[in-house]
Amino acid sequence: MMNRIDGGVTAPKGFKAGGLASGIKKDGQLDLALIASEVPATAAGIFTTNQVQAAPVVLSRKRVQKGIAQAIIANSGNANACVGNAGMEAALKMAGAAATYLDVDQDLVLVASTGVIGVELPVVKIEAAMAQNAGFIDALGGKNAAKAIMTTDTFFKEIAVEFELSGIIAHIGGIAKGSGMIHPNMATMLSFLTTDIAISAEMLHQALTYAGDRSFNRITVDGDTSTNDCLLILANGQAKNKIIADNDPGYQIFLQALTFICRELAKMIARDGEGATKFVEIKVVQAGSEEDATRIGKAVATSNLVKTALFGEDANWGRILAAVGYSGVPVIPEKINIYLGDLPVCRGGTGLVFDETKAKKILAAKEIFITIELGLGSNEASVWTCDFSYDYVKINGSYRT
Amino acid sequence: MMNRIDGGVTAPKGFKAGGLASGIKKDGQLDLALIASEVPATAAGIFTTNQVQAAPVVLSRKRVQKGIAQAIIANSGNANACVGNAGMEAALKMAGAAATYLDVDQDLVLVASTGVIGVELPVVKIEAAMAQNAGFIDALGGKNAAKAIMTTDTFFKEIAVEFELSGIIAHIGGIAKGSGMIHPNMATMLSFLTTDIAISAEMLHQALTYAGDRSFNRITVDGDTSTNDCLLILANGQAKNKIIADNDPGYQIFLQALTFICRELAKMIARDGEGATKFVEIKVVQAGSEEDATRIGKAVATSNLVKTALFGEDANWGRILAAVGYSGVPVIPEKINIYLGDLPVCRGGTGLVFDETKAKKILAAKEIFITIELGLGSNEASVWTCDFSYDYVKINGSYRT
Repeated sequence: MMNRIDGGVTAPKGFKAGGLASGIKKDGQLDLALIASEVPATAAGIFTTNQVQAAPVVLSRKRVQKGIAQAIIANSGNANACVGNAGMEAALKMAGAAATYLDVDQDLVLVASTGVIGVELPVVKIEAAMAQNAGFIDALGGKNAAKAIMTTDTFFKEIAVEFELSGIIAHIGGIAKGSGMIHPNMATMLSFLTTDIAISAEMLHQALTYAGDRSFNRITVDGDTSTNDCLLILANGQAKNKIIADNDPGYQIFLQALTFICRELAKMIARDGEGATKFVEIKVVQAGSEEDATRIGKAVATSNLVKTALFGEDANWGRILAAVGYSGVPVIPEKINIYLGDLPVCRGGTGLVFDETKAKKILAAKEIFITIELGLGSNEASVWTCDFSYDYVKINGSYRT
Repeated sequence: MMNRIDGGVTAPKGFKAGGLASGIKKDGQLDLALIASEVPATAAGIFTTNQVQAAPVVLSRKRVQKGIAQAIIANSGNANACVGNAGMEAALKMAGAAATYLDVDQDLVLVASTGVIGVELPVVKIEAAMAQNAGFIDALGGKNAAKAIMTTDTFFKEIAVEFELSGIIAHIGGIAKGSGMIHPNMATMLSFLTTDIAISAEMLHQALTYAGDRSFNRITVDGDTSTNDCLLILANGQAKNKIIADNDPGYQIFLQALTFICRELAKMIARDGEGATKFVEIKVVQAGSEEDATRIGKAVATSNLVKTALFGEDANWGRILAAVGYSGVPVIPEKINIYLGDLPVCRGGTGLVFDETKAKKILAAKEIFITIELGLGSNEASVWTCDFSYDYVKINGSYRT
């Protein structure tokens, strides 16, 4: 069994979290999040593939390799990226401030930042805020942590589930932030997960990689990969389950719950993409491999022509077929069928005469489901995105005006 | 010496061209172009890499392999793509109509189409128009041919040059159409070139491939590759030069002129990209190879975040650096310098304090030049694109409304 519960990252046992307004963002908005386990936790992380990486990514990537961590500190409003040596100095001071606050070894603190790039992080504000706000984290603070990592997200993103693991109730909680702009700079995807299960570092990393590939790595808003993307998980063992150390039934139960958590958070990010008016799921079926299906889904989900047509509520299957054709995956056009919702619009690579009124109705919905049948195999994958509206251009082009 | 001259595809000796309004497009707009050589010509072509290919692409690719052709017939208003067997039937009938009109073997006729996808081409209109308009092509008709292949291009695109080849005056002419929409469907790039030099099919193909890679393959409007893209050249030998059959000085002179022609036409397409308000040149220098420089330039030129920032006249170098970072080409961020025009904005991967007013002035111009120094070698490449405006979304999203 698995149930959705409240509490986000503080739903699992033995975790505290909270958010502060340190003054990096204007108008007293929350801009500093801290998530901490009562005890050192098994840790794993996945980071941006961009070769240009922010200092906190470099630091957290290094620290998480030890497989153990106790806290995550993250700020919004400044990406602490592309500022030279000042970047690592600031990231280390951030970690140090959290370590002092929590009285833990600073090597056990992971760091993340999101916001304006190329501007030095005013880390003194973070140090001051931590020093002046004793007790700002608690077992109910998950929501404030979720709010503190928001940039131009229109809603905060958190989720938690409880599930049974050989007679024991275990939990996973998570928060995330999506594509948003701080000052006129790039978007960043951040997600922090907590769980109270006991699991080895190796299996935790394996599980996070599996879940991340099938969730955060299957959404796209604009095809741009940020310098700060970061997915972190802390597993503190407070559920007192027999430690998961290999691919046993317990691991499978955890993997299922973790993948669900990551998918739901990823979908929230797609739903809240910049300027988005619609949530779009692209399901590619009958593929030779899951990887092929994913590549094709991403090509379609990244196509400006497809996304603007969805914004315009235009049954433009030709653009979908064209994107499949340039995805790089070998296909046989004559075998491809395309459906908008349950409406067939293309069969065997050839356009069908369809009811434009019904198509309009399907495309007028807030959620659009596109299915692409390749006729090449039995594998499938879904990719999630949003439409492409005037507001995307406005948010990204005229932010300062 | 090389001089620009008038005449487009009819500038070279022994070529006739013209345009007709066959009724495929509404309002009596020109929608049918015919370009013909007085004698059979050496021919070469480059076609879309999209696996979903329109029937005329399939037909012309097959016919051009013989290395000889005498005419090109092209229509706008309908892409003759994704309509099943009807597509090839229509393409063959189009070629047949041109063959009858010109009294040449129909295997010598190349075909191209651009426009709405998934709708059968009303080829009877083309046959009727050809039958009813004797003498619509002549030695001054290049301009009408250029107009007849336009979709939502805002200006017709043609160019011609004369140059000296071992004491003989030779010519190259060309027309092109860029990213435009006909009904709500994909954009197509078409370009047709003529020359009166004598050259072997092998060397002509080699030259076209070289020139195409450095021109049409270095522009991007929205990153979507069409099902109909097509670049064709006819060389009829009427300049009476000693035939170019290997990599001799004559070939180099021709190659230089051909590359110039292709580049100018490609830049016209970028300048006229959908919704474009600015022409953008991205020059990547100090690269390990020309291919690396090109890949990085394309990553930057395709970034929605970069393009919307340029539309917003925002000195957003962070997005440029990020795009370099995810281009897939190994780079050393600490060595990267970025310039907007002549203004340094990023040195060694770190942001510089720069004059925002000067940056604003540079970005307010109609032409923006971005230089990226990699510090890795001595190779370079330029890529051309346009900014990303509200109108792109409007043209592609709300075309029918």
